[in-house]
Amino acid sequence: MNDFNVSCPIPLDKYPQVLLAHGGGGKLMQQLLEKMVFSTFKTAQDIPPHDSAVINLPGSKIAFTTDSYVIHPLFFPGGDIGSLAINGTVNDLAMSGARPLYLSLGFIIEEGLPMETLWRVIQSLKKAADVANIQVVTGDTKVVDRGKGDGIFINTAGVGIIEHDRSIAPQFVQPGDAILINGDIGRHGISIMAVREGLELETTIESDCAPLHNVVLEMLNQGIEINCLRDLTRGGLASALNEIATSAEVTINIKERTISIQEDVQGACEILGFDPLYVANEGKFVAFIPQSSVNQALKIMKSFSQDASIIGEVTGHGTDMGLVTLESKIGSQRIVDMLSGEQLPRIC
Amino acid sequence: MNDFNVSCPIPLDKYPQVLLAHGGGGKLMQQLLEKMVFSTFKTAQDIPPHDSAVINLPGSKIAFTTDSYVIHPLFFPGGDIGSLAINGTVNDLAMSGARPLYLSLGFIIEEGLPMETLWRVIQSLKKAADVANIQVVTGDTKVVDRGKGDGIFINTAGVGIIEHDRSIAPQFVQPGDAILINGDIGRHGISIMAVREGLELETTIESDCAPLHNVVLEMLNQGIEINCLRDLTRGGLASALNEIATSAEVTINIKERTISIQEDVQGACEILGFDPLYVANEGKFVAFIPQSSVNQALKIMKSFSQDASIIGEVTGHGTDMGLVTLESKIGSQRIVDMLSGEQLPRIC
Repeated sequence: MNDFNVSCPIPLDKYPQVLLAHGGGGKLMQQLLEKMVFSTFKTAQDIPPHDSAVINLPGSKIAFTTDSYVIHPLFFPGGDIGSLAINGTVNDLAMSGARPLYLSLGFIIEEGLPMETLWRVIQSLKKAADVANIQVVTGDTKVVDRGKGDGIFINTAGVGIIEHDRSIAPQFVQPGDAILINGDIGRHGISIMAVREGLELETTIESDCAPLHNVVLEMLNQGIEINCLRDLTRGGLASALNEIATSAEVTINIKERTISIQEDVQGACEILGFDPLYVANEGKFVAFIPQSSVNQALKIMKSFSQDASIIGEVTGHGTDMGLVTLESKIGSQRIVDMLSGEQLPRIC
Repeated sequence: MNDFNVSCPIPLDKYPQVLLAHGGGGKLMQQLLEKMVFSTFKTAQDIPPHDSAVINLPGSKIAFTTDSYVIHPLFFPGGDIGSLAINGTVNDLAMSGARPLYLSLGFIIEEGLPMETLWRVIQSLKKAADVANIQVVTGDTKVVDRGKGDGIFINTAGVGIIEHDRSIAPQFVQPGDAILINGDIGRHGISIMAVREGLELETTIESDCAPLHNVVLEMLNQGIEINCLRDLTRGGLASALNEIATSAEVTINIKERTISIQEDVQGACEILGFDPLYVANEGKFVAFIPQSSVNQALKIMKSFSQDASIIGEVTGHGTDMGLVTLESKIGSQRIVDMLSGEQLPRIC
């Protein structure tokens, strides 16, 4: 899963672990950056990044976002902190309908991190960036004393270009909009929990960690009138819908039978006492689409993932604003509220 | 120093400390973001940031940079992690000759951080952003378990616009270029060390933490032919000159008597056994300027800080490339090398 084919360019017998000095601005930091980071992420730019990367954008309407990644453990089935740090930020750009172009990369490393672990993470970052067709153009490395961090934290900030005239945001959601999802839910959070809890399952549940910009850009390209997009990360589907319902001042109804959940994920949720509606995903999103575009939108989403579906619709405006309800498989209605905190800390 | 006038909008009797749930994607996180972050950094944009901020840039040649701030202690004479996180990234943009416009803001908070401390930091971020005339447009908050972080780490990424046609980078440094500095060195690092070591000094040494874009933009505006700029952070003046000399394949000579160091900073360096040439600054930079523009450039720099000076020049090209030498006050020459690590961990 976590390919580790290229041997670490820093001699591991000499530097088996990251030292405070690797973040200190001197020779050791320069060596680490040049051998491990710059050479991995070298770009076609004329001028290598010094203090800032200087880049030309094909347009001046941009999306700009940031996320820090503190996931524990660093490696999990279906991904690791590196692929997560790329895809998470790519997806935040995609949810604005932007084409992701450039990323910054900030490491906060705990003194004592095995150098080989850092190299695995960098290799994974590179692989995920290549898959998402995004360039890492600037970065920073800090090292904190042992016991003052937790292995490695990564921040990525992303810049993307907006090539269309649509306004995609919660306040453009309209009563009657259909709510589409691009596949099954709950896999990311449960894959992390299964590793943390040492859960013995028949099959290994893999995170759904993946970039989402291609399906979004294809919908925009085909003229789908997208009103709102949202990836289903911390807090899962339930929290995303609640936030949008509150911002848009609408009510939302979803149908349980249309929401796809893998059998092993459902089983693990039952063992752990989790509601899959609140479990984090890293490759799933909802789209709010006017009825006139629904069939075409679903067709495009299905061409990227077969289990895309329509899970509900925006039912009202103004009254009971912010309310999200679910029609269960047996036909009863219940309210889907926000949780206070979350079920699963540090899943991203 | 650290103004704290507006009372914390989260009730401190109920939430005296940051909880894991404040980063969990649920109600508590929403409340913290809305009351403390969004309301502080609200912008004039039509569309509030959802997943990404959507911004219009007045041009398409941009600078993009990132830095994480892990400074310890969080508050120090002359600044705190908040002012540092704004000015540090503003200065990285300025060193590319860019006009800083937008920042992202990523918090990694350790569970148990006093809520009041977070609020002080947010207030300081806001104040520094206003002084630097930069907008915080997007952000992220993560909370890690107690003992897995150190109070608060902050990442900022910055986007600036480049309004000129000059290429400002080490490889454009030329033999004969004068090296100008905008003031005295060593204050930031020593102010941190004095606090950490409990050093009893006659006067309190204050960090020089400050934004640098105004002086740079004024030089560009007046047509100064700037070849390279560099702020003197981790590793100080000595490391910056070494990196530039190596990148540009030149030799550099500086004169000790032209380098301004406050008497109390010099004294503290002697007590601590530090060479001020290697001590970090957060409001100082060097500019590499062709002789034809030197007088005008110095005049502009002096109009911003009276103790700006010419500290040396680029002496050669090709031979002994990368070598930095210093002419001491008594006229002898010595080599100023890179350190392996640094004198002072976690000063930024």
